[in-house]
Amino acid sequence: MKELPIHIQLQPKNGKTLYEQIYEFIRDEIRAGSLLRGEKLPSARFLADYLQVSRTTVDMAYGQLVSEGYLEARPRQGYFVSVIEGLCAVDLLPAGGYARTYSEGRQKAGKYDFSPNAIDMHFFPYATWKKITKNILVDANSDLFSLGEPQGDFALRRTICRYLHGSRGVNCEPEQIIVGAGNDYLLLLLEKILGRHVHVAMEDPTYARAYHIFQSCAYPVSLIPMDEYGIRVDELKKTDAKVAYVMPSHQYPTGISMPIGRRMELLRWAAQEKGRYLIEDDYDSEFRYKGKPLPSLQASDNNGNVVYIGTFSKAIAPAIRISYMVLPYPLLERYRRACSFYSSTVSRIDQTILNEFIENGHFERYLNKMRKQYRSKHDLLLNELRGFEKAFRLSGSNAGLHVILTDRKGRSERALAQEAEAAGVKVYQMQDFRMGTDHGNAAMLILGYGALSMEEIQKGLALLRKVWL
Amino acid sequence: MKELPIHIQLQPKNGKTLYEQIYEFIRDEIRAGSLLRGEKLPSARFLADYLQVSRTTVDMAYGQLVSEGYLEARPRQGYFVSVIEGLCAVDLLPAGGYARTYSEGRQKAGKYDFSPNAIDMHFFPYATWKKITKNILVDANSDLFSLGEPQGDFALRRTICRYLHGSRGVNCEPEQIIVGAGNDYLLLLLEKILGRHVHVAMEDPTYARAYHIFQSCAYPVSLIPMDEYGIRVDELKKTDAKVAYVMPSHQYPTGISMPIGRRMELLRWAAQEKGRYLIEDDYDSEFRYKGKPLPSLQASDNNGNVVYIGTFSKAIAPAIRISYMVLPYPLLERYRRACSFYSSTVSRIDQTILNEFIENGHFERYLNKMRKQYRSKHDLLLNELRGFEKAFRLSGSNAGLHVILTDRKGRSERALAQEAEAAGVKVYQMQDFRMGTDHGNAAMLILGYGALSMEEIQKGLALLRKVWL
Repeated sequence: MKELPIHIQLQPKNGKTLYEQIYEFIRDEIRAGSLLRGEKLPSARFLADYLQVSRTTVDMAYGQLVSEGYLEARPRQGYFVSVIEGLCAVDLLPAGGYARTYSEGRQKAGKYDFSPNAIDMHFFPYATWKKITKNILVDANSDLFSLGEPQGDFALRRTICRYLHGSRGVNCEPEQIIVGAGNDYLLLLLEKILGRHVHVAMEDPTYARAYHIFQSCAYPVSLIPMDEYGIRVDELKKTDAKVAYVMPSHQYPTGISMPIGRRMELLRWAAQEKGRYLIEDDYDSEFRYKGKPLPSLQASDNNGNVVYIGTFSKAIAPAIRISYMVLPYPLLERYRRACSFYSSTVSRIDQTILNEFIENGHFERYLNKMRKQYRSKHDLLLNELRGFEKAFRLSGSNAGLHVILTDRKGRSERALAQEAEAAGVKVYQMQDFRMGTDHGNAAMLILGYGALSMEEIQKGLALLRKVWL
Repeated sequence: MKELPIHIQLQPKNGKTLYEQIYEFIRDEIRAGSLLRGEKLPSARFLADYLQVSRTTVDMAYGQLVSEGYLEARPRQGYFVSVIEGLCAVDLLPAGGYARTYSEGRQKAGKYDFSPNAIDMHFFPYATWKKITKNILVDANSDLFSLGEPQGDFALRRTICRYLHGSRGVNCEPEQIIVGAGNDYLLLLLEKILGRHVHVAMEDPTYARAYHIFQSCAYPVSLIPMDEYGIRVDELKKTDAKVAYVMPSHQYPTGISMPIGRRMELLRWAAQEKGRYLIEDDYDSEFRYKGKPLPSLQASDNNGNVVYIGTFSKAIAPAIRISYMVLPYPLLERYRRACSFYSSTVSRIDQTILNEFIENGHFERYLNKMRKQYRSKHDLLLNELRGFEKAFRLSGSNAGLHVILTDRKGRSERALAQEAEAAGVKVYQMQDFRMGTDHGNAAMLILGYGALSMEEIQKGLALLRKVWL
């Protein structure tokens, strides 16, 4: 049987050992899905020959991949990509649900990944970040190395407060804000505040990760269908849900911006019964291209029914594990009574760096730069998509970093996505975000453009045109 | 009524506004318990006069403290320290349970705080930390700004693995390690892995925070009495507990080191029935003064029944929000199946800094230095405590950063603690760590010495000698 080599560009002087480079390359290939589950790898001997490295080097890399669970060694057969369920992140969640983990910044040659979660880190002011870090550590303020307040440093909370008020109309005091290491953590904390057995309603399709978190909290989840204005409140009312998790600014993944009428309907639902809450996930509110940005749902809430959640992972960098949650007063009291012993999950050093970054105007400048960048990409994408109009309806393009194409010709999502894949273009299927049953919806493809360059957007769409039109 | 001023050393040029300085001073006083719940503050007019600042400055500081919930404004009466339950960290938990949050590095003039949680940050290699940070950011590796693996970066997990194997005899592979932002977070994650309604057994007295976390997870908790060897396995067997949370190396707060016989008994209990687990919290295993350090409980476990949890908050700095959990394989599989979608709570930058700090030998050097420091303090403390022998029995002094004094004269804990307090010395009462009913135990006082200087230890003990002996 002929063995297929793996092309690895080894760089003898990049600071990593050859074995690490091989290990990392194969691991990334597996994660990216380029090496498929169950696929056989070339033998260590063959690969060592091919790459002109010692057999031991390849053995070490393979050994590490086995101990990490990426590969399986089968006696007398060789090495195979593991098939254990849930082993690789990409296997675990519907496409896209995890995509942002690994898609940032990586763009395979000849492969155009329209991930809806990837962002552009090209213009990130690394030098500024580094300078702030340096200055903060110069002070060698030993206070920074102590454990901060459970809710987060007051200075950062005050800054977030001001920012949210100015940009999103959020009405809150610093005392209502809880800073935490990512949205997932904040949802876990919110579970402890809300208590157990809370019936949650979600838009369908929705953000898969939040759905999985509610599941792992053993919350009953009702999936509510959407229309062009967002979640259908008439359907919501038919459930016993106490809490509704919504993304009014730019629903993920449909891209729908909920108009004010539907928002008021939703707020009325929440106010109708004591103990009802809306969780507003305002994940990418920073980027909007058409019309005046609507303030947050929280801004229209006069009854303290909205929990507002946002993150800096999207607007700054995924590595910035800093999210925030604004609690209405009744929940704040519960938090203080029952949960404020949970230590902060964000170091004071990181909080201080972020605070300086915002306070000194770097965040605003960076956002403005990125708004321009993303607007250019957005405009180019829309322009290029004009030719697709007969075959697809375009939607969700007013904000955020992705758009939706709905097929007009009765083709299947899977077929369209596979045709794209075969042409070297990765698009995402709406069915992977539908948590309920699929009622024979028209095929909808999700195209994110955050991390792609202008050229890549053009080339990717040109390829799609060939296979789809 | 005569008003008492608050002495605040205002520093016009320390970079903070006067209002911020007043705000922070009073907030810290409240947190430290120096201003008591319900205590009346001087009027804004009076304090402004006294501090020679404008009335507006004090008004702003008070206003902020009110909005933060530290103070209450009562119409026509003035400002009072809030009495709302759970508002201040120090009110929320038994003394000590939270102490480490605010006690690090701060030592009031004339007040000796023997907090069992405080650590000495005096010798922390800030310059090294800063240099590593700088070097890492110099590379401006944009990869560092992307979201890392849910379990933590492989490089750090490999390093932790090696460290745990070398220093604690822990047997594990990097794939078994989950890195998370603090023990509290890891316990929340463990809840999702173990599932709901898990009956937990804990030593009594125990670490209050863990107790509160299990409570907030709605886990039934059985409190198991201890003898001189630690948790009583015969009592444990009488419960339906599936999981036992233990601190075999140096139990908190009793200081008991569990001998091998009791450990084997505990492991046999776990192995007896499928699905039983031991959670080993090895929170301060780094410091030991007498005898050979016993390896971890996990090291003696041949059946995969031990979840090992440790942290860098104690050995490096509380700000380092990096803890780790070693999962036995059955739980690792459950994690992979049900929980690996939870994003990492630690930024890759922080993980990389920590990894370099350990890999380049700084951690080892720092630990060695601190071992010496703590040993000197420990030896001094024990020497000074010789004079206490007739009145108190000393225990728990073989390891860690605190010791226990058990009264021989039938006095009450509260009375002894209050006498100490009146003399300007803060000691901690065992009853605050007893989660079950108190069966008329002899008074036990906890004396931590981690953050105190040699001189402070001597002075503090001299004061105790006067009031206690």
